[in-house]
Amino acid sequence: MSDLQTPFYLIDLAKLRVNMERIQYLRERSGAKCLLALKCFATWSAFDFMRPFMDGTTSSSLFELRLGHEEFGKETHAYSVAWADHEIDEALGYADKIIFNSLGQLDRFGARASARGIAMGLRLNPRFSTSGFDLADPARPFSRLGEWDLPRLGSALDRISGVMIHYNCENGDFDLFDAQLSRIEAEFGGFLAKLKWVSLGGGIHFTGDGYPLDRLADRLRAFSEKFGVEVFLEPGEASITKTASLEVTVLDVIHNGKDVAIVDSSIEAHMLDLLIYRETAKLPQTGDHAYQVAGKTCLAGDIFGEARFAQPLKVGDRISIADAAGYTMVKKNWFNGVAMPAIAIREENGTIREVRQFSYDDYKSSLS
Amino acid sequence: MSDLQTPFYLIDLAKLRVNMERIQYLRERSGAKCLLALKCFATWSAFDFMRPFMDGTTSSSLFELRLGHEEFGKETHAYSVAWADHEIDEALGYADKIIFNSLGQLDRFGARASARGIAMGLRLNPRFSTSGFDLADPARPFSRLGEWDLPRLGSALDRISGVMIHYNCENGDFDLFDAQLSRIEAEFGGFLAKLKWVSLGGGIHFTGDGYPLDRLADRLRAFSEKFGVEVFLEPGEASITKTASLEVTVLDVIHNGKDVAIVDSSIEAHMLDLLIYRETAKLPQTGDHAYQVAGKTCLAGDIFGEARFAQPLKVGDRISIADAAGYTMVKKNWFNGVAMPAIAIREENGTIREVRQFSYDDYKSSLS
Repeated sequence: MSDLQTPFYLIDLAKLRVNMERIQYLRERSGAKCLLALKCFATWSAFDFMRPFMDGTTSSSLFELRLGHEEFGKETHAYSVAWADHEIDEALGYADKIIFNSLGQLDRFGARASARGIAMGLRLNPRFSTSGFDLADPARPFSRLGEWDLPRLGSALDRISGVMIHYNCENGDFDLFDAQLSRIEAEFGGFLAKLKWVSLGGGIHFTGDGYPLDRLADRLRAFSEKFGVEVFLEPGEASITKTASLEVTVLDVIHNGKDVAIVDSSIEAHMLDLLIYRETAKLPQTGDHAYQVAGKTCLAGDIFGEARFAQPLKVGDRISIADAAGYTMVKKNWFNGVAMPAIAIREENGTIREVRQFSYDDYKSSLS
Repeated sequence: MSDLQTPFYLIDLAKLRVNMERIQYLRERSGAKCLLALKCFATWSAFDFMRPFMDGTTSSSLFELRLGHEEFGKETHAYSVAWADHEIDEALGYADKIIFNSLGQLDRFGARASARGIAMGLRLNPRFSTSGFDLADPARPFSRLGEWDLPRLGSALDRISGVMIHYNCENGDFDLFDAQLSRIEAEFGGFLAKLKWVSLGGGIHFTGDGYPLDRLADRLRAFSEKFGVEVFLEPGEASITKTASLEVTVLDVIHNGKDVAIVDSSIEAHMLDLLIYRETAKLPQTGDHAYQVAGKTCLAGDIFGEARFAQPLKVGDRISIADAAGYTMVKKNWFNGVAMPAIAIREENGTIREVRQFSYDDYKSSLS
């Protein structure tokens, strides 16, 4: 607990260290490089802590690319589904490697990257993935994410030195990863052997408790040696899973056929993926007193989920919503003008440091 | 067309005038007051234009309340699903009326409002609505939105002078509105007759072409006279429907079994409701050349929808996505770090004036 005004996101560095040490172990044993995926987590106040454990960042836009280059440093990969003409020169100024999503983009911008000596890659879409959710499945029908035709990919070999293959999504099953990587080897191996580097993207949940890290490391090393390529991973959620909470306060308790606690936050504004993917927040589940925990926006479905507490809830009680680091702060918004959560960091010595507050002026200037 | 850098939201004042004049007509004929619902549209650069046609604003949070009070003026209604202790005094400083969501909130804060002479109300939930979408249905089971028990409502009569009843959602069917209002009269009429004012909320699509505005006006006047109450409406979408577009540029055209045009925007970041409600953007539909129009984020389902054009699309072409005023700018976000659309206003003389640009510094300071 702290005296900060709720709501706020609280990043716990002691928990972050656990993930970082697993990443470092994987890097050392496998030889693979690990780049933080900024699309998932870009709270740059944590970068000083994370930097020693990781190799750099990867990005999905010019702004993420610049943030990674300027605030994280080390190796910076530039990817975007589509670069604009007016962005590309600035992007090349930040990038160590640039990964184009399509042959069309490579044709359009490759000469400029080449002139600056920047290594180029393409996104390879293997046409399968571990995603069970159509919305997030990069291999969905007519996916615009990457090239999948081998002759087309081959036609770029004179220009590219690597590919990025992103096809995992919260995949905590090593055997599935192993089988799919074997499928990639079988289908694309001849092509991969002509490259210098392969990024296997993000979505591998290898920092989870019980994940067979050694098997993953050895598999990655074998892949690297088989094709003579440097391997990259792009952990987003795996980097920061279970390291932050969203701290909220109960504002009202109502009893409309169910006990509902209304808190000073909102899924749509502050944990948007719960709404998009129709998921439930990680809430306390111990005790005899059951409540639905709901947000304070006008949205009828602004519901974090069902929870249990040891004591009846009352106005002013604090609730900690777990696992609030990934895809939360990067997509928070001003829906309903609800006060935006501050961002705070719990140091390893227990001190809590607020690194950003949001004010009425921030709300007002989000519009015009 | 204009030379502004895409993406940008473009608010067209000539179109906005059409809606405003319909609102003014309704106010004059019905005697009802119309308050802009800021949760839908809060782009305050347009307030000078809108102010003469409307009576003020209503809000869903402290920040919206303050914005309405300071930038729109006139009558300001304060509503929030739940006020926090630290907000209430500031809120009372901006409010002409305050509407509490629950008896619990009225009990907690009513004395403070009363001491300042501010009229109070409660939200009445009639337990039915026109919403066909559970997520947005204020009458869904265990809804936390308002009180519905007549004895509980009656117990507040010594403190409140009105109620807010929000139960319509994009309802363009006057007969349905009429029937549901009759049901409210039948179920709650005895209670309503003891009040001074009734807000019927938002969600009535009365500015749409062909809507029987006279019948609505006469029905509202009859309701007002029957119960001796002042009537309020809270048009959000109705105020700004069809008055803005999102202007984007094609960055890439790919052919993965379908012709897909990738543009410099994103449904999740810039038109979030398309994603939340699994809807399709209003795109051009004329011509022999069919394309899927998709956004540039990493989300596989970042798809605006299917469109048709007179000519084949090429990189650099502009596309105008219609009906982009409501629930767009108020919930835009920095997902993927995609460049946030500027906000521009087309004056009635055709001049386009950019009122807000968003920069890398805005992105960076959205985090910390």
